Amino acid sequence: MRAEIIAVGSELLSFSRTETNSLYIASKLNPLGIKIARKFVVGDSEQEIREALQIALKASEIVVITGGLGPTNDDITREVVADCLGRELHESKEILELLERRYSRFGIRLTSNNRKQADVPEGAEILPNPHGTAPGLFLTEGEALIFLLPGPPRELYPMVENQVVPRIQKVKATSQRLMRLLKVAGEAESRVDARIESIYKEYPLIETTILSSPGVISLYFVWNGVDQSEAATQLDELQGRVAGALGQSVYSDAEMSLAEALGAKLTALSKTISVAESCTGGMIGSMLTEVPGSSVYFEGGVISYSNAVKSRLLDVESGVLEEHGAVSEPCARAMALGVRRLLGTDIGLSVTGVAGPGGGSEEKPVGTVFIGLAHGGDCEVRKLHLPGSRDAIRLRTCNLALDWVRRVIE
Amino acid sequence: MRAEIIAVGSELLSFSRTETNSLYIASKLNPLGIKIARKFVVGDSEQEIREALQIALKASEIVVITGGLGPTNDDITREVVADCLGRELHESKEILELLERRYSRFGIRLTSNNRKQADVPEGAEILPNPHGTAPGLFLTEGEALIFLLPGPPRELYPMVENQVVPRIQKVKATSQRLMRLLKVAGEAESRVDARIESIYKEYPLIETTILSSPGVISLYFVWNGVDQSEAATQLDELQGRVAGALGQSVYSDAEMSLAEALGAKLTALSKTISVAESCTGGMIGSMLTEVPGSSVYFEGGVISYSNAVKSRLLDVESGVLEEHGAVSEPCARAMALGVRRLLGTDIGLSVTGVAGPGGGSEEKPVGTVFIGLAHGGDCEVRKLHLPGSRDAIRLRTCNLALDWVRRVIE
Repeated sequence: MRAEIIAVGSELLSFSRTETNSLYIASKLNPLGIKIARKFVVGDSEQEIREALQIALKASEIVVITGGLGPTNDDITREVVADCLGRELHESKEILELLERRYSRFGIRLTSNNRKQADVPEGAEILPNPHGTAPGLFLTEGEALIFLLPGPPRELYPMVENQVVPRIQKVKATSQRLMRLLKVAGEAESRVDARIESIYKEYPLIETTILSSPGVISLYFVWNGVDQSEAATQLDELQGRVAGALGQSVYSDAEMSLAEALGAKLTALSKTISVAESCTGGMIGSMLTEVPGSSVYFEGGVISYSNAVKSRLLDVESGVLEEHGAVSEPCARAMALGVRRLLGTDIGLSVTGVAGPGGGSEEKPVGTVFIGLAHGGDCEVRKLHLPGSRDAIRLRTCNLALDWVRRVIE
Repeated sequence: MRAEIIAVGSELLSFSRTETNSLYIASKLNPLGIKIARKFVVGDSEQEIREALQIALKASEIVVITGGLGPTNDDITREVVADCLGRELHESKEILELLERRYSRFGIRLTSNNRKQADVPEGAEILPNPHGTAPGLFLTEGEALIFLLPGPPRELYPMVENQVVPRIQKVKATSQRLMRLLKVAGEAESRVDARIESIYKEYPLIETTILSSPGVISLYFVWNGVDQSEAATQLDELQGRVAGALGQSVYSDAEMSLAEALGAKLTALSKTISVAESCTGGMIGSMLTEVPGSSVYFEGGVISYSNAVKSRLLDVESGVLEEHGAVSEPCARAMALGVRRLLGTDIGLSVTGVAGPGGGSEEKPVGTVFIGLAHGGDCEVRKLHLPGSRDAIRLRTCNLALDWVRRVIE
């Protein structure tokens, strides 16, 4: 089944605004077996909204239009769609009352601009909007379903989930959860693909998507077949076989960050962790504390950006710094042991490296990174050579460090 | 002048991939006085590429098509565009030689699929691609300019800058740099808008765009007039008046992060800084060290996520923690003074707060944050009440903290 998305709003055509509503809509429609076949991004222009709607209706069974339902003069989606389908607009008493109540709370009287949000095309169903003034609208035109949704994500997201998805399921009798995923860390995309390609190619009805960011890879398996009776069995089988092939590299079968997965494991094992960061400058701590409740296992750490801090706080001996330098195996070891001792945690994690663009040498080029991990009686150090920009090297370092802890405590 | 962008690639219609090439293209065309009037995102489908091109050509003078120029069977942009315009394809010897050389370096012989990258529609100009195999193509059709560009950003970006922009400037005789910007920190978007609205409304030929993220606001002024003789004067005047109205809140008139602006100032004043972070968990350090060369002014810091670390490393007295709690004015003060003393820097910056979603109380609800700033003989503390999610509260806290340092050292 095909859907098209028409995003309305001149601001979406500037160089500074990405249109992201369509990704959320796709994430909710794909599992129903619905493919997004085309997207339009158009300004607040009658001609262009009309053109997009006409083309989309010719080709697809579902059309979702976002934006342009608000109270300003620019907002013309409701009017253009009604006109395009040859439907009259009627003022809805129900919406008008809601609007009056909402505006009066702020001591505002309804203007004619505000009032137009109560207009409803003939035959349209109202989709309530608990998070804003403009309700959504649902129309059918022949076999096609048309949804008009507000632009702001906090209004649109719940409306898609609670109003759009159930209506499509009802009318189109689709099933649900035709998608599986796996989150993978500590592996390069090309290596992951090489190891699993022969498996997922055996499932021609499942679309496998590999999405990689520095240090973390997401695998998505979406059912593409028309007949859905086999979908769950085949998806589970493929997910299971790929997970088996990747072994410990898989850190979750649900959408979560590496820090979340590690946090859950640390909590389960009642272990605590501290960090000593040089080239990442606090980013590992920042990632760990993105997770609510991380205080259970994260004590804190030392950002030892300068050598003085490395020796003064973490007891890295000056001999180590002089002989081997700050970016070295012995320094990473001393940092990990030092922060664990200082903060009294079960695990001490350290990072020191050359993130670039400057600071590289022949012996230690940009991308040279040492990660130290003090755990139990042991302290291991890994040396990495990472590609990419300063940002990519730092992010990859953080993810590889968190992933290493996850693997070691398992 | 209007341009339209057609992004080709089925992967761009998944829920996991944002189309961002069009933003880069807009950022390079807007300063030439060219507005992006519409965007299409279509799959690798002949029908949909054709439809989009036909519609776009009817309405706009410039059409930029990205993606679908590679060697695989999916890549059909070149063929569809040629067919749509009624142009024959000829094999270019020049491109073929380049391809042969490139592939032979990897020990690969050209297949017919690879060869099709050498096909050029009648009358098209070749846009060299030093970063990949598929060259770009430039065609004119009546008054319209059509650009076919490769999809990967590292191939597309330099081609836009070095090939597309100069060709548009030549044919359309546009001038350049018809854009100005201001970066603003420490102010809410609504307050900024209220203070400058009456000013920018005086310039109907300049489009003012306000883009806000937690703690930082970007103002863009783009010339929209046809006659460009007045553009520079009016843009400079508007930029100057808005900068005057916002005073110290403006941290830059060029595209840069707050940490970069602060870093430049610290470098100029030869001052050093250290951080003590609780609820931000290292994020301020991470932001400061995103900037290459930050080791000149950033010594490091302490991530004092637990109370034990606050007292052991930063000498926050246990009486302070017992009486006032970790989220308090005296604790923020002790942290800032503690980290400055410990690391021996000119400035000590501290943050402690309730980022949520848990941990709030009636007295200290989620969003309560204290920032401490030890500087010279002084240590000031600010109390904030921040709205939003955990992520938004943390990000806003970091930006407000960095901004405060910037203002104080000025």
